[in-house]
Amino acid sequence: MYLFPESMKKLVRELSKLPSIGEKTAMRLAYHIVNNDRELADSLSKALLEAINNTCFCETCFNFSEGKTCKICEDVSRDHSLLCVVEKPMDVFAFERMGEFKGVYHVLHGLFAPLKGLGPESMKLKELFQRIENGKINEVLLATSSTVEGDATSLLIADRLKDMNVKVSRLAQGMSKGAELEYADDITLSRAFSGRNYF
Amino acid sequence: MYLFPESMKKLVRELSKLPSIGEKTAMRLAYHIVNNDRELADSLSKALLEAINNTCFCETCFNFSEGKTCKICEDVSRDHSLLCVVEKPMDVFAFERMGEFKGVYHVLHGLFAPLKGLGPESMKLKELFQRIENGKINEVLLATSSTVEGDATSLLIADRLKDMNVKVSRLAQGMSKGAELEYADDITLSRAFSGRNYF
Repeated sequence: MYLFPESMKKLVRELSKLPSIGEKTAMRLAYHIVNNDRELADSLSKALLEAINNTCFCETCFNFSEGKTCKICEDVSRDHSLLCVVEKPMDVFAFERMGEFKGVYHVLHGLFAPLKGLGPESMKLKELFQRIENGKINEVLLATSSTVEGDATSLLIADRLKDMNVKVSRLAQGMSKGAELEYADDITLSRAFSGRNYF
Repeated sequence: MYLFPESMKKLVRELSKLPSIGEKTAMRLAYHIVNNDRELADSLSKALLEAINNTCFCETCFNFSEGKTCKICEDVSRDHSLLCVVEKPMDVFAFERMGEFKGVYHVLHGLFAPLKGLGPESMKLKELFQRIENGKINEVLLATSSTVEGDATSLLIADRLKDMNVKVSRLAQGMSKGAELEYADDITLSRAFSGRNYF
């Protein structure tokens, strides 16, 4: 690294700040850009600035947006009475890829994780309850991850919604498609068993 | 992806042009940048432009450089009579990291691969022979990779240097440090055997 020209060292340093990019990968990327693809440096540099300048968060659901309100919240053909609560914008994309959900979203931007010092105030919870209090929402689908923190967040929200006039549901838990019974962990199997479907 | 804002889609597209970055990784990187680290977008964007504007190739050895001649070629404390021939700039960094080589380099920027349509003219070979013809070089160390193409390139260069008044050597081939005999491939073992050292 010490014999890289100064400007390449800087590029390697910046690239390795990206998640899952270590110094070696950053060196390979910097080498590729300078050696083979100088046009890419130019277009990537522009795309980076454009993305941070043009992308903000929707004021209603806190998903990525290019205006005050995102395309999903603006879409009148969607069911605005069905609200899906997720942790982060990428989860919205997972749902949209699946293609069967026609409701709207609320992005929490965090999970309840007291051991990491993240309490309810670290998420967009106040805004969620505000939306629900405004009426118009019939069902809240809690779609946080099936992790300890995801479960804790869902329980916390479900508990607070108890006295509100709204149906609360949670994603089904059970065996993943393609999972072999032999290798299933106990908690997954236990949840698949207790949530079994009758023919 | 279709619900990403336009500017984020563009960033994902540009990021996935980088080697070993697929669409999913690019989405994760774009998400990280826009969600957590907008400063990084700014500094990375600047570093990209700086790297392509300030980095060129040394006119002598064709390694990366910020001026006409790189720091290694300018260093009078190095042995300019010992020339190490490598495929690409990253190989120079591998050698420099090892720290025992005090000669100078010649970067070929390619290997002889007739099956891929890459002949001798695709590398900096003419420039290599010119450097050797200019005198002053006593030994040429062929340090191309131990692949079919690396071997072919070394043989090609060694053959052309036969009639020149210069010693030609090649990196030793044999067992890697930590390699287990049981799992060594036949060619490696054969080379380690024929190149065995006597106590």
